[in-house]
Amino acid sequence: MKNRKGWAILMRSRMKLPSNNTTNDNLFNKLPISNEIGLTKPASEGNQMNQNPSSFMQNSERELKAVQVSMHSAVSTSKTDIIDSVLNDFSEGYFSLSFEMRQELLLVLARECDVNRTQVRELIQQYLGLHPPLGEIGQESGVEESLLTAFYRTERNLRHALQPKYEILFERLNTHPGGLKFLSILRADLLSMLAKENIASVRALDSYLKEKLATWLSPASLELHHITWDDSASLLEKIVAYEAVHPISNILDLKRRLGVGRRCFGYFHPAIPGEPLIFIEVALQKNVAQTIKEVLRDDPPTPESEATCALFYSISSTQPGLAGINLGKFLIKRVIELVKRDMPHVSTFATLSPIPGYMQWLLIKLASQTKLAESEAGYTPHRLDGGSGSTFRKNILHKEEEAALMELSGEFYSGKNGMEVMWNLLNSKNYEWTSFERLSSVVRAPLMRLCSRYLLQEKKRGKALDAVANFHLQNGAMVERLNWMADQSEKGLCQSGGIMVNYVYRMDKIEENAQSYFGEGHIQASSDLQSYIESKLQGERVTGEK
Amino acid sequence: MKNRKGWAILMRSRMKLPSNNTTNDNLFNKLPISNEIGLTKPASEGNQMNQNPSSFMQNSERELKAVQVSMHSAVSTSKTDIIDSVLNDFSEGYFSLSFEMRQELLLVLARECDVNRTQVRELIQQYLGLHPPLGEIGQESGVEESLLTAFYRTERNLRHALQPKYEILFERLNTHPGGLKFLSILRADLLSMLAKENIASVRALDSYLKEKLATWLSPASLELHHITWDDSASLLEKIVAYEAVHPISNILDLKRRLGVGRRCFGYFHPAIPGEPLIFIEVALQKNVAQTIKEVLRDDPPTPESEATCALFYSISSTQPGLAGINLGKFLIKRVIELVKRDMPHVSTFATLSPIPGYMQWLLIKLASQTKLAESEAGYTPHRLDGGSGSTFRKNILHKEEEAALMELSGEFYSGKNGMEVMWNLLNSKNYEWTSFERLSSVVRAPLMRLCSRYLLQEKKRGKALDAVANFHLQNGAMVERLNWMADQSEKGLCQSGGIMVNYVYRMDKIEENAQSYFGEGHIQASSDLQSYIESKLQGERVTGEK
Repeated sequence: MKNRKGWAILMRSRMKLPSNNTTNDNLFNKLPISNEIGLTKPASEGNQMNQNPSSFMQNSERELKAVQVSMHSAVSTSKTDIIDSVLNDFSEGYFSLSFEMRQELLLVLARECDVNRTQVRELIQQYLGLHPPLGEIGQESGVEESLLTAFYRTERNLRHALQPKYEILFERLNTHPGGLKFLSILRADLLSMLAKENIASVRALDSYLKEKLATWLSPASLELHHITWDDSASLLEKIVAYEAVHPISNILDLKRRLGVGRRCFGYFHPAIPGEPLIFIEVALQKNVAQTIKEVLRDDPPTPESEATCALFYSISSTQPGLAGINLGKFLIKRVIELVKRDMPHVSTFATLSPIPGYMQWLLIKLASQTKLAESEAGYTPHRLDGGSGSTFRKNILHKEEEAALMELSGEFYSGKNGMEVMWNLLNSKNYEWTSFERLSSVVRAPLMRLCSRYLLQEKKRGKALDAVANFHLQNGAMVERLNWMADQSEKGLCQSGGIMVNYVYRMDKIEENAQSYFGEGHIQASSDLQSYIESKLQGERVTGEK
Repeated sequence: MKNRKGWAILMRSRMKLPSNNTTNDNLFNKLPISNEIGLTKPASEGNQMNQNPSSFMQNSERELKAVQVSMHSAVSTSKTDIIDSVLNDFSEGYFSLSFEMRQELLLVLARECDVNRTQVRELIQQYLGLHPPLGEIGQESGVEESLLTAFYRTERNLRHALQPKYEILFERLNTHPGGLKFLSILRADLLSMLAKENIASVRALDSYLKEKLATWLSPASLELHHITWDDSASLLEKIVAYEAVHPISNILDLKRRLGVGRRCFGYFHPAIPGEPLIFIEVALQKNVAQTIKEVLRDDPPTPESEATCALFYSISSTQPGLAGINLGKFLIKRVIELVKRDMPHVSTFATLSPIPGYMQWLLIKLASQTKLAESEAGYTPHRLDGGSGSTFRKNILHKEEEAALMELSGEFYSGKNGMEVMWNLLNSKNYEWTSFERLSSVVRAPLMRLCSRYLLQEKKRGKALDAVANFHLQNGAMVERLNWMADQSEKGLCQSGGIMVNYVYRMDKIEENAQSYFGEGHIQASSDLQSYIESKLQGERVTGEK
């Protein structure tokens, strides 16, 4: 980590920073990986490697068996005085296991500590037997109170019986010191496991645990903390380690992000002290920034009294095991309320966000359409001249864009059509196209237009394909503006050709937007963004007429 | 309240103390009553009383309807931006209702926001349809993964469907400011309602809410706070108001209970700030106190460095709506740990506890046995001379006790037998019997012996009949010693003839005791206590031989 030396000097002591290999979670990574900063690292592997392979296997098996025993005991013991030590044994044992062994263990948990279905079946029969007289429930007239009491009791018993046995383990861990954090790591492992193979019982285990975590991490149980330079080094170290959007390059960078004209807020849970579950970085500005450079490098910053806009330029969640639990929505709402209260002159709340999936989507689109165009050229020549009716081949470029790109062909990048030229250009080494005005000016129009289409129209199960877009839209934001060359870092160019987007949160529209997005998948966008799409429709017509 | 003036002078400002009419909860009261210290009092009744009766009725009906509407809306709305205001409307509306109207409303909640049983029935059919292939669950061999996925999904849906709709209201209130406190008041109302009439759907509602509250108030979410004289007046005022065992008589009394040689600890929930859910008062002493006077009046107190014993002399829970949720167990365990850590020379942890149900039990016993004896005397004279085989008549007094009591007959209290004399003596005005050595010395032996029998042998559903005994026994304490004339206050004499009991907590035995009490109803007692019972058996034999 670049700033390690700076840190050490500043803190006048040697610090152990999480190593660079630590996988930082990114709000936008959909498949989280176990992240154990601050927790004991698997120790056994290193130790055991020195032994011969067969005794290693035996030891591992023995170790796994031991953890399995403590797991079963943690589920089934009724001796409350030993629960704490059993849970400690289990969690310590779990951390000492390799990922493969953890998988084996989780499979055992999913299968052996599942619902008692014999009991469920019995109770269902009992329940159905009591059911008939209950057409009248609600009136309770004519039905004997004692019969009703029996019915309600059976219903409650059935409800309880439908809870898997691992419910007990989860509940116990939740009230055990360090247990909540452990559960989030356990869930991260479940997700890694499910990413490789879909096992129904493990999926059910995961979905159950997710529900429990969501309950325990309700907004009411979370504390909002304004993170400043006065916070402990151990906390700030975690901010550096977990920042997932715009890496913190050195100690000065960190100090600036916590200083004048900046805010950093974290959501903390009392059971996971000293470590935010999610945090957001805010810049106070005169106008909504168009490039990330303005935000990260403005020196001196806008005086706070002149700010009219609060820009959310980075949101990072720290626990891969909390994937799918939307803590960001409440965080953003509370931060808006807080800033509004403290700074009534701030009236605009916007983001400057990456578009992590754009370039990947576009390159696949260009490649597949190019191929289709080629194969069609070979097999169905009568369709080459366009035909807007074709469901297979669609030139996603406008006529003028196609022409401009073909002009580059030969001189810079070769290609049989505009799409292929564009593909080659975007794949050029070191993003060469950004260094030449001639190239970037040609590619700008189609890149911006298709980006708008990607954000507003490309969907998966009714939701925006882009994970960040989906995040802000479900929180009730609208798509406000695309910014050209807004992030010229390696990562920014790779993800989105350097384009960034402003989402805007209007407090009076948040719920309405969120509802119509959630219900009908409707995406609220500014007229600016809309106009790209309209020109696209026009463009297609034009293309079709070519 | 006696100490109001003292308070006001001390705090140099006028304070509104909860009035004497406020019903304080007592851990030992089994039927809690709504307690709304710190909350808006029903306002509507007073206002409406000025109107004519018919418009009063109409207004009340209208009001009830309005609260009902906000309740339904709080259950069913999906607009998260209005939830807060809907919940505010609902809770404010609820507080404005009379108890009768609250009952009506709760009945509506229980019946109309119940489980959707049509959906449950459908899902059960679906579930049973998927069930057969699941004999193999656990192996997942031969069963298609997609079938299993469908099965788990149906099972989860069934689990969800079995949750009543009011679950949503509870969850929403729990995360709403003031909502947890409101739910505890709502439950107190439910309990008052059920004390008058057993309605199955309301009982189910109560049992569901109790489960939820127990989850939310898990020890992990509670904070232990050492309450001192440096705490806010608003907090200390609540200690005065809620002290349920030994009323705090004046400001000096309060100060002493928080001063040298004393400790007061409260369990707080973050969502109910400034008000403990339960608190415990501790005296540090050289020996386990035998009278409450020693505890409340010792001046100067034992120097803390000389203390070897921590005496729990008062535990008060403040929320009637949390009845049946044992917060005391964890509180006592944590306090023992804390005191042990801070004062390693303290090795004995004991209580000095009231026996709230003793005198009531004894008087009923004496009266009924006397009556039985009389009726037997009339109808079955051949049995008058005893007959240990009689299942109806049992002289619960020993031969010597009977004789000593009959000696008093005529001179002080009349009676056909010892039991009747004793009944009359115990019911004498102003506890006259305690003022005369002659009387109290005669009654001491049977009172102590029968008290031991009451504590160790009288049970209800396998649990100790006495509520305080049951509380400490289920927490893992043992019955150590009975103390004669330990509490000579009006309340003490009325409840238990002035007898108090020491329960002792031995850390190494707590779990063992709790388990055997919970499992087999076994009550652990000192040999001292046991000897009373043994002499009782002897006594009965003697009576039988008379």
